[in-house]
Amino acid sequence: MTTNTQVLIAALPEGKLEESHYRIEEGAMPELPENGVVVKTSAFAITAGTRAGLQGSASYAGAPSTGIVMNSTGVGEVVESGVADIPVGSMVVGPTGWQSYSAHEAKAVTAIHPSHNPLHYLGPLGVNGLTAYFGLLEVGQPKSGETVMVSAAAGSVGHMVGQIAKIKGSRVVGVCGSEEKCIALTHDLGFDEAVNYKDDGFRDSLKGATPDGVDVYFDNTGGMILGAALFRLNVGGRIACCGVVSQYDTDRPEPGPKGIPGLLVNKRINMRGFLVFDFAHQYDQARAEIHGWLESGEMQALTDEVSGLEAAPAAFVDLLSGGNIGTRVVRLD
Amino acid sequence: MTTNTQVLIAALPEGKLEESHYRIEEGAMPELPENGVVVKTSAFAITAGTRAGLQGSASYAGAPSTGIVMNSTGVGEVVESGVADIPVGSMVVGPTGWQSYSAHEAKAVTAIHPSHNPLHYLGPLGVNGLTAYFGLLEVGQPKSGETVMVSAAAGSVGHMVGQIAKIKGSRVVGVCGSEEKCIALTHDLGFDEAVNYKDDGFRDSLKGATPDGVDVYFDNTGGMILGAALFRLNVGGRIACCGVVSQYDTDRPEPGPKGIPGLLVNKRINMRGFLVFDFAHQYDQARAEIHGWLESGEMQALTDEVSGLEAAPAAFVDLLSGGNIGTRVVRLD
Repeated sequence: MTTNTQVLIAALPEGKLEESHYRIEEGAMPELPENGVVVKTSAFAITAGTRAGLQGSASYAGAPSTGIVMNSTGVGEVVESGVADIPVGSMVVGPTGWQSYSAHEAKAVTAIHPSHNPLHYLGPLGVNGLTAYFGLLEVGQPKSGETVMVSAAAGSVGHMVGQIAKIKGSRVVGVCGSEEKCIALTHDLGFDEAVNYKDDGFRDSLKGATPDGVDVYFDNTGGMILGAALFRLNVGGRIACCGVVSQYDTDRPEPGPKGIPGLLVNKRINMRGFLVFDFAHQYDQARAEIHGWLESGEMQALTDEVSGLEAAPAAFVDLLSGGNIGTRVVRLD
Repeated sequence: MTTNTQVLIAALPEGKLEESHYRIEEGAMPELPENGVVVKTSAFAITAGTRAGLQGSASYAGAPSTGIVMNSTGVGEVVESGVADIPVGSMVVGPTGWQSYSAHEAKAVTAIHPSHNPLHYLGPLGVNGLTAYFGLLEVGQPKSGETVMVSAAAGSVGHMVGQIAKIKGSRVVGVCGSEEKCIALTHDLGFDEAVNYKDDGFRDSLKGATPDGVDVYFDNTGGMILGAALFRLNVGGRIACCGVVSQYDTDRPEPGPKGIPGLLVNKRINMRGFLVFDFAHQYDQARAEIHGWLESGEMQALTDEVSGLEAAPAAFVDLLSGGNIGTRVVRLD
């Protein structure tokens, strides 16, 4: 009899996340819901944003809890189906969590177009890619020739923000946490400049990399990098607030940057938080455009793969300390 | 021979502003510029924003300097004129500064409509009123029935923000620093609620005063009140960043609120800094609407008058510690 290997939240972190906050169990196979499907996970993504769901409050993900399967978006094959339009054998994307099998209402999963690479639904055609797309284009609204700055630039969202900005005619400056990432951004992905925020001269380097200032800052981090960006932003600049990765892995968030709200006033900056789900009615159009860029080679989807459910906790801890380049994916097949 | 009494900046404050940072001198009468006017000051406004211009940096007002006349907007009568369309005897508004006579290029002053009360050009028809108007309506964009919160609510801008929001059909909650101000807001100006931020239970009182949350926060203060507002803002809320009065009178600005940028993301808040000058092309239309409200009695212009140039430094120090209700005006006539 097949069992369902699951990674459960064993304890909620106080301070930094550790592998010991998770445990692996063999659970029962899920039952097919009425009007639903059972999915065998092929792969799932690990993203920094889910760290916020483990904290006490102030997350859109709801209250955290122990003894439940760790949440994530995954792709997999339908192995049982109670609905005609998602037959057994279909590939779908949905909230699989960190487990080998999951059951869903049909409306909770999305069928993957047969001509698409399912793994792209964890990257450029998934939540990460859509977040980059809408955050940059709808919230940041860069004009051709403007300078776009993005933090966590080598991350799952950031590396796509920079590429979309390049496609749209912007000058792109990425901020990341290692020389290796800087090289990946400028050599492999076409960023104009990349700056390592861990370097002593970070603020000077950022200034040098943005001689015409910054028009759009796509903020994945908050904290010190947001503070530095405020000083580089031009009059009329825009900040797309996407995430706060600098503050996720702690129970003591930093205060906000000193320049808020003073610099917002002086420079008439528009700072707007967004969640990708607010743009759900535009996903199809966005996916079609992104798919075109993937097909033409204008966009590259960087993935950083690990293998096996048991590797997920360490992969998450490492991601939170900045260990990944591109989208971190755990493969089960 | 007439002399020009002037209040000069004697020293730049390090820390809190004091009267000793100013000195009074008898200067020479200004000369009539080609294509200009000489104005005899009737009254000028003292506003918190000018405090920022005395600090070392980060102000839209430019670098501070000593030995110059303290800047302010004033109204007065043209006593010499080199331009046909602003004859001697006209009333004008312009950057008179703290002095009894000033000379201006014609384009630097605005003629006051003969049917308007000149003092209104220091309040509802001047920079303060226009700031309230555009910051609320263009940046905050309240919808009828929404809750508008405003800080420094008894101040020159704040007391007009609340009244305009009421006229436009919002529920209005003001935050100010004394019981006397709270009473003025709710009894005299029609605010629905007023909360004293100096009270121990401020956050609870604010929560009680905003049972449906806050849709638009007009921020004149930054700092702790901004932090409290972030927790009361609804999903899709807007913050109009107008000023940072909590941080003006110091050389050590506080860090920004902890909820930035995390709460901006979770609640999809749009936070936008603005300067009224960006709306200059719409001033005439705004003044016409505000004038209508003054004529109909829907809007009251509160002024807090002191008499004589020598009273200005103390009036400014007192204003920065929250001593005024409405627009603080120094009258010279």
